[in-house]
Amino acid sequence: MTTLDPETLADRVRDGELRLHELEEYADADIATEARRLLLTAETGADLETVGTYGFPAEEADSAIENMIGAAQIPMGVVGPVTIDGGAASGEHYLPLATTEGALLASVNRGLSTIDSAGGATVRVTKSGMTRAPVFRVDGVAEAFETVEWVKANVDVLTEAAESTTSHGELLGVEPYIVGDSVYLRFAYDTKDAMGMNMATIATGAACEVVETETPADLVALSGNLCSDKKPAAINAVEGRGRSVTADVVIPGELVENRLHTTPKAIAEANTRKNLIGSAKAGSLGFNAHAANVVAAAFLATGQDEAQVVEGANTITTMDAREREDGVDDLYASVSLASLEVGTVGGGTKLPTQREALDILGLRGGGDPAGSNADALAEVIAVGALAGELSLLAALASRHLASAHEELGR
Amino acid sequence: MTTLDPETLADRVRDGELRLHELEEYADADIATEARRLLLTAETGADLETVGTYGFPAEEADSAIENMIGAAQIPMGVVGPVTIDGGAASGEHYLPLATTEGALLASVNRGLSTIDSAGGATVRVTKSGMTRAPVFRVDGVAEAFETVEWVKANVDVLTEAAESTTSHGELLGVEPYIVGDSVYLRFAYDTKDAMGMNMATIATGAACEVVETETPADLVALSGNLCSDKKPAAINAVEGRGRSVTADVVIPGELVENRLHTTPKAIAEANTRKNLIGSAKAGSLGFNAHAANVVAAAFLATGQDEAQVVEGANTITTMDAREREDGVDDLYASVSLASLEVGTVGGGTKLPTQREALDILGLRGGGDPAGSNADALAEVIAVGALAGELSLLAALASRHLASAHEELGR
Amino acid sequence: MTTLDPETLADRVRDGELRLHELEEYADADIATEARRLLLTAETGADLETVGTYGFPAEEADSAIENMIGAAQIPMGVVGPVTIDGGAASGEHYLPLATTEGALLASVNRGLSTIDSAGGATVRVTKSGMTRAPVFRVDGVAEAFETVEWVKANVDVLTEAAESTTSHGELLGVEPYIVGDSVYLRFAYDTKDAMGMNMATIATGAACEVVETETPADLVALSGNLCSDKKPAAINAVEGRGRSVTADVVIPGELVENRLHTTPKAIAEANTRKNLIGSAKAGSLGFNAHAANVVAAAFLATGQDEAQVVEGANTITTMDAREREDGVDDLYASVSLASLEVGTVGGGTKLPTQREALDILGLRGGGDPAGSNADALAEVIAVGALAGELSLLAALASRHLASAHEELGR
Amino acid sequence: MTTLDPETLADRVRDGELRLHELEEYADADIATEARRLLLTAETGADLETVGTYGFPAEEADSAIENMIGAAQIPMGVVGPVTIDGGAASGEHYLPLATTEGALLASVNRGLSTIDSAGGATVRVTKSGMTRAPVFRVDGVAEAFETVEWVKANVDVLTEAAESTTSHGELLGVEPYIVGDSVYLRFAYDTKDAMGMNMATIATGAACEVVETETPADLVALSGNLCSDKKPAAINAVEGRGRSVTADVVIPGELVENRLHTTPKAIAEANTRKNLIGSAKAGSLGFNAHAANVVAAAFLATGQDEAQVVEGANTITTMDAREREDGVDDLYASVSLASLEVGTVGGGTKLPTQREALDILGLRGGGDPAGSNADALAEVIAVGALAGELSLLAALASRHLASAHEELGR
Repeated sequence: MTTLDPETLADRVRDGELRLHELEEYADADIATEARRLLLTAETGADLETVGTYGFPAEEADSAIENMIGAAQIPMGVVGPVTIDGGAASGEHYLPLATTEGALLASVNRGLSTIDSAGGATVRVTKSGMTRAPVFRVDGVAEAFETVEWVKANVDVLTEAAESTTSHGELLGVEPYIVGDSVYLRFAYDTKDAMGMNMATIATGAACEVVETETPADLVALSGNLCSDKKPAAINAVEGRGRSVTADVVIPGELVENRLHTTPKAIAEANTRKNLIGSAKAGSLGFNAHAANVVAAAFLATGQDEAQVVEGANTITTMDAREREDGVDDLYASVSLASLEVGTVGGGTKLPTQREALDILGLRGGGDPAGSNADALAEVIAVGALAGELSLLAALASRHLASAHEELGR
Repeated sequence: MTTLDPETLADRVRDGELRLHELEEYADADIATEARRLLLTAETGADLETVGTYGFPAEEADSAIENMIGAAQIPMGVVGPVTIDGGAASGEHYLPLATTEGALLASVNRGLSTIDSAGGATVRVTKSGMTRAPVFRVDGVAEAFETVEWVKANVDVLTEAAESTTSHGELLGVEPYIVGDSVYLRFAYDTKDAMGMNMATIATGAACEVVETETPADLVALSGNLCSDKKPAAINAVEGRGRSVTADVVIPGELVENRLHTTPKAIAEANTRKNLIGSAKAGSLGFNAHAANVVAAAFLATGQDEAQVVEGANTITTMDAREREDGVDDLYASVSLASLEVGTVGGGTKLPTQREALDILGLRGGGDPAGSNADALAEVIAVGALAGELSLLAALASRHLASAHEELGR
Repeated sequence: MTTLDPETLADRVRDGELRLHELEEYADADIATEARRLLLTAETGADLETVGTYGFPAEEADSAIENMIGAAQIPMGVVGPVTIDGGAASGEHYLPLATTEGALLASVNRGLSTIDSAGGATVRVTKSGMTRAPVFRVDGVAEAFETVEWVKANVDVLTEAAESTTSHGELLGVEPYIVGDSVYLRFAYDTKDAMGMNMATIATGAACEVVETETPADLVALSGNLCSDKKPAAINAVEGRGRSVTADVVIPGELVENRLHTTPKAIAEANTRKNLIGSAKAGSLGFNAHAANVVAAAFLATGQDEAQVVEGANTITTMDAREREDGVDDLYASVSLASLEVGTVGGGTKLPTQREALDILGLRGGGDPAGSNADALAEVIAVGALAGELSLLAALASRHLASAHEELGR
Repeated sequence: MTTLDPETLADRVRDGELRLHELEEYADADIATEARRLLLTAETGADLETVGTYGFPAEEADSAIENMIGAAQIPMGVVGPVTIDGGAASGEHYLPLATTEGALLASVNRGLSTIDSAGGATVRVTKSGMTRAPVFRVDGVAEAFETVEWVKANVDVLTEAAESTTSHGELLGVEPYIVGDSVYLRFAYDTKDAMGMNMATIATGAACEVVETETPADLVALSGNLCSDKKPAAINAVEGRGRSVTADVVIPGELVENRLHTTPKAIAEANTRKNLIGSAKAGSLGFNAHAANVVAAAFLATGQDEAQVVEGANTITTMDAREREDGVDDLYASVSLASLEVGTVGGGTKLPTQREALDILGLRGGGDPAGSNADALAEVIAVGALAGELSLLAALASRHLASAHEELGR
């Protein structure tokens, strides 16, 4: 291969001799990336200098992007440390967050600091499983019924086919759904420390071949939206996807007053009227204040799939005043994230800044036992979300949301 | 102010003399950022070199982050150009996307290329308004009724109060909702080229003061979740938030076969069984394949709020075979994003790589007329989502989803 | 017309000379009804004596049923009286209920009696409007946009067309929604004392003709499911359909203990964990215990459309302990029914037992002013639902649900 | 017991010596019923003659109602017969329907007649299980996790406790859900020919006692709304409750044109734009035209719980044109009711007119094998719903909905 320089590559694209995505065939990844910037600058006038100052060899991103021109730089900060009593995470943890929303880290940090002063948060992954649900065409309900009966009786056969494609993943179960002449099979997998979407897709593809061979069903689409990936769907909010994780804390009333400048009852009232009743009236699947903020910022920092923030928003926040024997109210606060999809291996976690962020957490790569790193990551993010809820609810209860944004925000 | 060096700052935090968020008081932003990295490296063993190689002065991010340690670098690429017939956008546009999901840009680009060959996409912003919905406490339904009657009769008074806080924003309307002794008022604003969340919050805060003065209602929380921000809520899917935008295209049957290697009928069937019926069975508010992928990647590239990807997923995709007079089927494809929240001024759009990405689009800063840049950005993203839907549905219809991921993915 | 006897008619149907629905052409309604019973008895062995002992001339039901064979007899009871402070209803009201669910009336009556002892309930219709939403086909988003712009600019023209079909109804507004090449127009009407579904359908039909004439849009279906009639839909739960009505009461703590054998805090806790958090986790549009029970039973008694019980279930129940100055907790309880569709004229309200039930309420026929009878009916039903919620929550809080059913139930 | 006459009883109630619900202690059920009518007539002026002409001894209704005053008479008609190929139902069936909605039976009958001409409908119960989901209070997530682990490991113990309360019911499984300090356990039962709500409640009550004894969890409410009974909830639409049943038919194109006066493509288009896309945009859990109409009318006729019409509306209707080899399009039509709750024993099925209606179906009482009668009832109702969908969609497609109502309706 003759390596061409960026200017020549850009010219050839402009002349129609090459297409944008073919440049890596004629130069290394960094040159190709530079060529695209040159082309875009010429065509749009955009100065792309900062986009071009990424801190790693472009070829390290070749499984993450095509038509690369550089990198978006999202400010990253850190909150914590906070003490965590988790099923997988334990002890003190910092949490790196990348965001462009001013005041977010300050808010989460205030919450974490309060939680830490209260002795830390408790958190558990209560359910786990990455899903993929293909849709099949059948002739009608009689064939649908027959197909589903076969599936129920042959889970072992499907398991063998599915697991033949993966060294780590395990098929946890298959749930069938019939709608007219469509059959949906929701496969759930233990994908260990990987978020697992691709593993689940590939394994399900192998299982589908068996279904097609053994039943009258024809595959229409490897994803039939009962998975459901990157869409706001009740099936995820109810049954979970990825990790279902709950975090909670009891904050002594004195701390609530001194640190959050309000009372447990005022926070509980704000939570009930806003997060429970307000969300109910809104027809929502998210009964929280801004869990997505923490999920999104943690996902960006640690290389998770940013579009899966959608499922991360399927979160219920509860806040209650608990009267102690001495008559003082403490605050019980919890968040339950139904469908948090995270991994510590594969995908964006392999990228340089993302690896480093996982190192801050001590959770890069596969855990021991397998799956424990991803469990722990889910737990830390949940505690971060709990802190964000606490802090925002307290701010609302004490009415300084707008002014906080005025000071710190855009 | 005596400027301290990073090592000293890190030591003082470790010794408990300073707190993490106070460092900017003793050094400039870059030094403070370096000090935090030193501290984290010492405490966690993490090497944060790449996180520290951000390409701009740290103080440029001071309204975007606290406790800054550097930047997450998300690979950015570009797709297009594609011809767009929009209400605000027109002509050829490139779309920058930042993601860690391999194969995404290749897929979107395939879709855009097909759309472009079909003559380009048509797109319109069909509704617009950023909302904020405070919740008030009243004594009961009689007071609730009284409060709402006052609000309905005094929209002009509320408008004056709200608009006194902003030079750009306009109050479009106030929608009241009563649930027991809670009253929710959903304020909607034209926020021009800003995404507008803060503008709406501040303006609503001013209006709330009037409501509290003139009615028996007491403000409980400036956001009562009928807004609804960063939660998957039907109110946004039905009534919209930010921009409601629809994009469509008719693709000649010949193109579908030659470029997408399938047929209009096969794509339409996959769309119906997956995006319509599958989503219906899943209890979903998102009737699409992966609109969130394009929304998330465009949001990251252009400095939008990454947690608002949640609302961007409230998208309905339709695909139909349209028989031509010569008997050949063409493909009609559309996406309707109910609640796409974007801006070209303020927030993350001011950051360096994000500004540059907006320059690729030619949409940085305020538009002329005001609001037209944000409208155009919404339109281009919608066309990107349309391309993503087209390409994925075609891939599913021709069954190479899993293998595409196997080749290109993680 | 020669009148035939029942046996002859039945024979002719059996011989294939007549069809079941044609019998009224050869005999009066009672004879035709008897003939069908004879036929069914002969063919299925069913003894239909009780079905045949309806208490009115069959022809009085001719606009309510076809292929009549008699009547279902649903046991009817009465609860109350209860004092109501409503927007339309006032003073003492009995509420007739028809049901087959043992223990329901006892439960509602216990609630009403408690409410009455607390001084009665307050209730208001807070929003009103019967909707019908046709769907139109357009060529694409450009035409959709054009159509919607025309509609917005010509509401007066549509109003004239719609109102030309009705002497009572008034068009309140038209809300447009665009999804790809489909345009939905949600027309809302004040239908006064009629439930108004037919009035709204006919008026909308006339408006649609204008839309088709003046815009490129073609009508596909007079109902496009954004109405949304007899389906569980967020649009109704959020925006209302028919009457939105809220009822509440404050019950002194002493009454809660003496009559409901529990405490305000215990009831509030049960409500929060069950009706708010439980419903949230269930992905529900109904945040209540059993509002549908009272709605269904009142609908059956008073001749409402029994399938619209679906929308009646879009109800949010709230319960809170309110601390008095003397330290005793009172109970605040409310129900907010978003979409209660009722009328006192037309439809089933004209039937004999249903008329009599409306007379018990003093709400038969048109009100003065028009609409006030239907408003009052909505208010009384809401108070009944409040009583049912109170009683069941209290029973759950004091744990005798199962035993109540064991004693009184099936 | 001295039996008092109606007038004396009414006087004593008026004088405050007796309460409305105590009359059966002083007279037989019919006298007590008459006394209440006398009282209501005196107090409200209502003539209750028809309400008083019920066709059975009042004491037969004593487990169905309290404070009885008579019966609501709902006109009952019959549709069919239609040929059914079901899992439990087979051969020809008439379907009795009770309603006050004019044109409904005519519409359903037209659909059934078309289905019958096409050879009949195919239908299967694809899932079955009556659920009850109590909510427990725990101290926090650690206890919640512990409780759920115990439950998963001791399903056999819970089964023994639950099944000790019933001679028929079988516990199918227990699904746990955690939200903060609340634990929900969704118990599912095979309740054979009973709808099974009470059986499930009582059995679950026994299981809860075990949970409370063996774990730290305290029962808050025997129903925690994850059941979910009589509320529009995604959990039922996704996972089913009672019977999940799908019915379908292929109608030759010729029949569609001759009998329904439209084309398969026109019906399919109306279904897609209305039932799929329109419902999607409405945030609906019901993707159908009016399944609730048939469910409600069949429920009233056969003594089902009228408030459970809510769950019956969780129905998805699909319609597609299927091209035959000769180029003619046939119509494929299906309905899938996710949560149809029916029984043929117990509850309202024991009442006289309701028993007779079940006799028309040949499905009164327990089936052989147990459960087969309720399965068959679900199947026949589903075919009725299919007919209703077909007929209404065809009417919309040929645009005579409004005029049909004008002719036949209110």
